[in-house]
Amino acid sequence: MSEFLTLLPPKDALNILLTNLAPANPIKEKVPVENALGRIIAEDLLSPESLPAFDRSTVDGYAVLASDTFGASESLPAYLTLSTEIPMGQPAQVGLKPRFAAPIHTGGMLPPGADAVVMLENTQVTGTGEIEILRPAAPLDNILLAGEDVQPGQLIMSQGTLIRPEEVGGLCALGIQSILCFSQPQIGILSSGDEVIPADQTPLPGQVRDINSYTLSALVEKFGGIPTRFGILPDLEEVFRTRLREVLDQSDCVIITAGSSASTRDLTAKVIQQMGKPGVLVHGVNIKPGKPTILAICDGKPVIGLPGNPVSALVIARLFVIPIIQKLSGLKQSSIPASISATLSINLPSQAGREDWIPVKLLSTPTGWSAEPIFYKSNLIFSMVQADGLVQIPSASNGLPAGEVVDVVIL
Amino acid sequence: MSEFLTLLPPKDALNILLTNLAPANPIKEKVPVENALGRIIAEDLLSPESLPAFDRSTVDGYAVLASDTFGASESLPAYLTLSTEIPMGQPAQVGLKPRFAAPIHTGGMLPPGADAVVMLENTQVTGTGEIEILRPAAPLDNILLAGEDVQPGQLIMSQGTLIRPEEVGGLCALGIQSILCFSQPQIGILSSGDEVIPADQTPLPGQVRDINSYTLSALVEKFGGIPTRFGILPDLEEVFRTRLREVLDQSDCVIITAGSSASTRDLTAKVIQQMGKPGVLVHGVNIKPGKPTILAICDGKPVIGLPGNPVSALVIARLFVIPIIQKLSGLKQSSIPASISATLSINLPSQAGREDWIPVKLLSTPTGWSAEPIFYKSNLIFSMVQADGLVQIPSASNGLPAGEVVDVVIL
Repeated sequence: MSEFLTLLPPKDALNILLTNLAPANPIKEKVPVENALGRIIAEDLLSPESLPAFDRSTVDGYAVLASDTFGASESLPAYLTLSTEIPMGQPAQVGLKPRFAAPIHTGGMLPPGADAVVMLENTQVTGTGEIEILRPAAPLDNILLAGEDVQPGQLIMSQGTLIRPEEVGGLCALGIQSILCFSQPQIGILSSGDEVIPADQTPLPGQVRDINSYTLSALVEKFGGIPTRFGILPDLEEVFRTRLREVLDQSDCVIITAGSSASTRDLTAKVIQQMGKPGVLVHGVNIKPGKPTILAICDGKPVIGLPGNPVSALVIARLFVIPIIQKLSGLKQSSIPASISATLSINLPSQAGREDWIPVKLLSTPTGWSAEPIFYKSNLIFSMVQADGLVQIPSASNGLPAGEVVDVVIL
Repeated sequence: MSEFLTLLPPKDALNILLTNLAPANPIKEKVPVENALGRIIAEDLLSPESLPAFDRSTVDGYAVLASDTFGASESLPAYLTLSTEIPMGQPAQVGLKPRFAAPIHTGGMLPPGADAVVMLENTQVTGTGEIEILRPAAPLDNILLAGEDVQPGQLIMSQGTLIRPEEVGGLCALGIQSILCFSQPQIGILSSGDEVIPADQTPLPGQVRDINSYTLSALVEKFGGIPTRFGILPDLEEVFRTRLREVLDQSDCVIITAGSSASTRDLTAKVIQQMGKPGVLVHGVNIKPGKPTILAICDGKPVIGLPGNPVSALVIARLFVIPIIQKLSGLKQSSIPASISATLSINLPSQAGREDWIPVKLLSTPTGWSAEPIFYKSNLIFSMVQADGLVQIPSASNGLPAGEVVDVVIL
């Protein structure tokens, strides 16, 4: 059973993999905007038109020529003649003449000749076909100018942008009905270990059900990859090699969870190394849980060997696999990890020189969130089921004291 | 055009709606675990078995009787006779006799008779069919006991639990292949306003494309509801009433975005009030953007009137519609909003007595995240496209100073 020669800091390990990974999946596909939530834009999008397309009122009131209102006050109002109301969704029938005021609604189209809108609250109807303007309006007051949101030809979303509800709105506003997106990366998932059986089978003594294939599928799906589970590999080098080659041919990235024994882990590293150049880049990361992590690139495709323990596999997948999926998806910058500030409820000791990630439960207290560490073993999946998030103990530290305010990464 | 009589604080407004809303959608359905990511469990789940099902080694080493190693040291090792290796995925062929040591892998099944495992590192092979134990083991050392993760009959997940990758793992570990989930709430979405046309049509002067139906559909989808867009209502009371009734009959909740004019907003409130008891609970919230928000419950179903401006509609939907969807989904407790700590780059003035939400861009700096406010108008959808998150200026404050550390809610 071999030793780990060098344990890299987690950040360095991930950087080595990401810098060796070619940027984006070259396959692009047209996607209707209404189905594009969560997809990544594969083109630099320019606006086909002005938004708004015309000058609009931002209040309910009266369209006026601002200079007609200069000097107006409650004691000395400006008197303007009422003109026809501007209907919603239509242009004014006629332009606004000087000394006139046209009733207009929020969002209504400004009539030609007007250059400001006076708010309803600053007017008074006299009942004689005139209105009193009680406060002066400056030119452009309460107006949204054509093109104020977006100009024709303006870059509105660049390649690598994630489509959120906000982007859907921007695209709809401009009448863009489909966009070029990167295809979602195909992530092949393999388990290994002679003790592991499919989750729908009944284990005999000594056997355990496959957990990792399913947790990893769910995580891949959640972060925009398309997972395919390819089953469980036996601890036989020849079968392992043949099967991994087949899965790699059908996938953009392969994740293998090693069996828990050291011999299976060694076999995993050995076979990955044979899959292509440059091969294994990282074998062993200075992190707990998850030390025996393997990061490789084989002929352009990432191959990730995760520890077999389900807690380790989930933690390492969150730290390493998600950024890899995001890069393969063409995302311009990794998403900002969802986190929340919380106060640590107890002391958390740790070994200096190693980065630790501790599952915590979040409790709402009158003074904010409290993070309660869960004492876990890396083989107990229910430690993760109980957890709301993870707290990092940095490598430089030998622990965190109770009362410390920490960032909890939400699971 | 009517005035708002009372403007409720946002928190109170939401509480009024949620306390008047019956807890869960009663329809339940069986869902295969591999399709259950993001669903809500509709039953209290008890474990059918022990996890792990047998005592397991947590290290690579030798299964022993701990008392055989008491007093062992590097200078005075305990000598034990090598027994057959315990194969992965199978029980030991024979029990462990006293003064014997059986090679065992991580995850291997402990043989009867053994009560501890000595790590490989603390042993030395002599080559004479014996091994030297260089450190004593205490009983239970390096062993995971059967049932240590979960006991048979133990409550493993309660009704209202969200299924994350972690829960998928827990269910697979126990061989649970399908679970009872709450059906996802059907959310009907309507736009209104004579100026609004479907997003796939070309606007004439004075017209604008529907944005809100699409942003809200995407947001509903993202947070576990099933959105259906029912088109655009004209500003005609009779048509509005008939159509809203039809949509309400087909939905668990209806969201209407009012046209931007005050008359459309008034019409919306009036018609919602006619849809059932108790009707409109909140009309007007002390918030910017989003003051003209309407919250109603009509014969048990929430009906939400959102402002027509796309920025206001999105902000209010995040604050009000998401918790409503989550309650209708049967989620036990609202999800913890994803946020991140950032330093405000400039002063943000605000009107005391009103809660403000400001879109910000997040920039990574050597000292952490910087939140750069986006100066927006609530009709400019691209202010939201540029934004990474929202910063709250509490009602009690008249602004936040540059350099303040704020929680940015991630969009």
